[in-house]
Amino acid sequence: MLPRFLVPDLDPSTGRAVLPEDEAHHLKRVLRLRAGDEVAVFDGRGREFRARVESAASSKIAVTLLEAVRPAADPPVAITLVQSVLKGQGMDDVVRDATMMGVEGIQPVVAARSLVKAPALHAAVARWRRIAVASAKQCRRARVPEIHPVLPLDRWLGGPVAGTVLLFVEPAVVSVNPLTMRRLQSHARPHSASVLVGPEGGWSDQEVAAATAAGCLAVTLGPLTLRADAVALAALAALSVVWGE
Amino acid sequence: MLPRFLVPDLDPSTGRAVLPEDEAHHLKRVLRLRAGDEVAVFDGRGREFRARVESAASSKIAVTLLEAVRPAADPPVAITLVQSVLKGQGMDDVVRDATMMGVEGIQPVVAARSLVKAPALHAAVARWRRIAVASAKQCRRARVPEIHPVLPLDRWLGGPVAGTVLLFVEPAVVSVNPLTMRRLQSHARPHSASVLVGPEGGWSDQEVAAATAAGCLAVTLGPLTLRADAVALAALAALSVVWGE
Repeated sequence: MLPRFLVPDLDPSTGRAVLPEDEAHHLKRVLRLRAGDEVAVFDGRGREFRARVESAASSKIAVTLLEAVRPAADPPVAITLVQSVLKGQGMDDVVRDATMMGVEGIQPVVAARSLVKAPALHAAVARWRRIAVASAKQCRRARVPEIHPVLPLDRWLGGPVAGTVLLFVEPAVVSVNPLTMRRLQSHARPHSASVLVGPEGGWSDQEVAAATAAGCLAVTLGPLTLRADAVALAALAALSVVWGE
Repeated sequence: MLPRFLVPDLDPSTGRAVLPEDEAHHLKRVLRLRAGDEVAVFDGRGREFRARVESAASSKIAVTLLEAVRPAADPPVAITLVQSVLKGQGMDDVVRDATMMGVEGIQPVVAARSLVKAPALHAAVARWRRIAVASAKQCRRARVPEIHPVLPLDRWLGGPVAGTVLLFVEPAVVSVNPLTMRRLQSHARPHSASVLVGPEGGWSDQEVAAATAAGCLAVTLGPLTLRADAVALAALAALSVVWGE
């Protein structure tokens, strides 16, 4: 497998590409590649090329584009993961996993029971963007998902939302009667969807009421209580079957 | 939610239970519960009771059983996760996640590309058993999955296996044409199944050939390459839809 490098301003008409500084560092210092070595470069928006290193002598590393590579197909439903921010490494893991599962974007939200508050999160968004890039490179995705700025949940619910919106609820929530994933299969497949996942302590009753009143469909992954930082991956894997080809 | 304690030798006919030493320590020193507090006790094989602490004065803590609690339903298919051992914390995470997803047992195997070798693993099995207990307590599962002793993959393939055996393969494997999870839904639901997940470097071509020759069905989670320690969770979540109610 060729090592992959992200070149956001890739212009195939020039026949070559110059790597951004951090990618050049990785190629030269970490992977110790040299002139003549083959690599892959992608623009994070769906285009990828096989390429050859022209020179690794200076800090500016250029590659010659050899041929276009067909990227992995996008999932049939464009999913935005609306994830309540998690403490510690939890949110980093979710960003990495959701990128790997092919989401189109990630919208971090602050929920009533979020243990991390919004002001601490502005610096985190830049880190999540770096994690999404690293994860896309590793799983050979051609697109890097967009990481949106953090919003309070009620702000997100009040904004314009297209497509199906699923609210994943825990088994302990008794105020709604959630659909199983199996039952969701009998609903028509949407073009796009948002998937809401709660914080460590789950959604508050008020949040469940507000979300369902706003048109969210309550759904469940089954009778067991999953760890908060595992719900997004399990939900996206389940949806890949529900809405799969 | 009541805190849960595992009492493997629970005998409901006596109307009470004495907690094992480590569980007593957790009740008294970590959660600082006292006489009169309510808890839940379960035997790890499907029985659970609401109970009241009789006394927390001595190191021997007894509880009075109050009433049987209906456990979360077992998944409709009894799944054994046959997981190639992973390095670092990866295997611990898989044991925790698979327990949370309701597997009946976990069979650790050493594959051709496993980065951890069998002799280093005998001590690890005891740790994985403790992780399975902790995860079962947290997700409110009534059964603790069995963690089998480590085996080389070929030994496991050569042994007696009941039910459907699924071999999860990566997108890069071209020697087989794996079924998608969506297609697997058109197959009859088995009573039991084994789910084989490879190590960090994936299965070798010889392993894929040997497994399919032994009757394993090659399956895929889609076109993206998942991290090795995320495959089991994604696979079990997908199967919960494929074989769900």
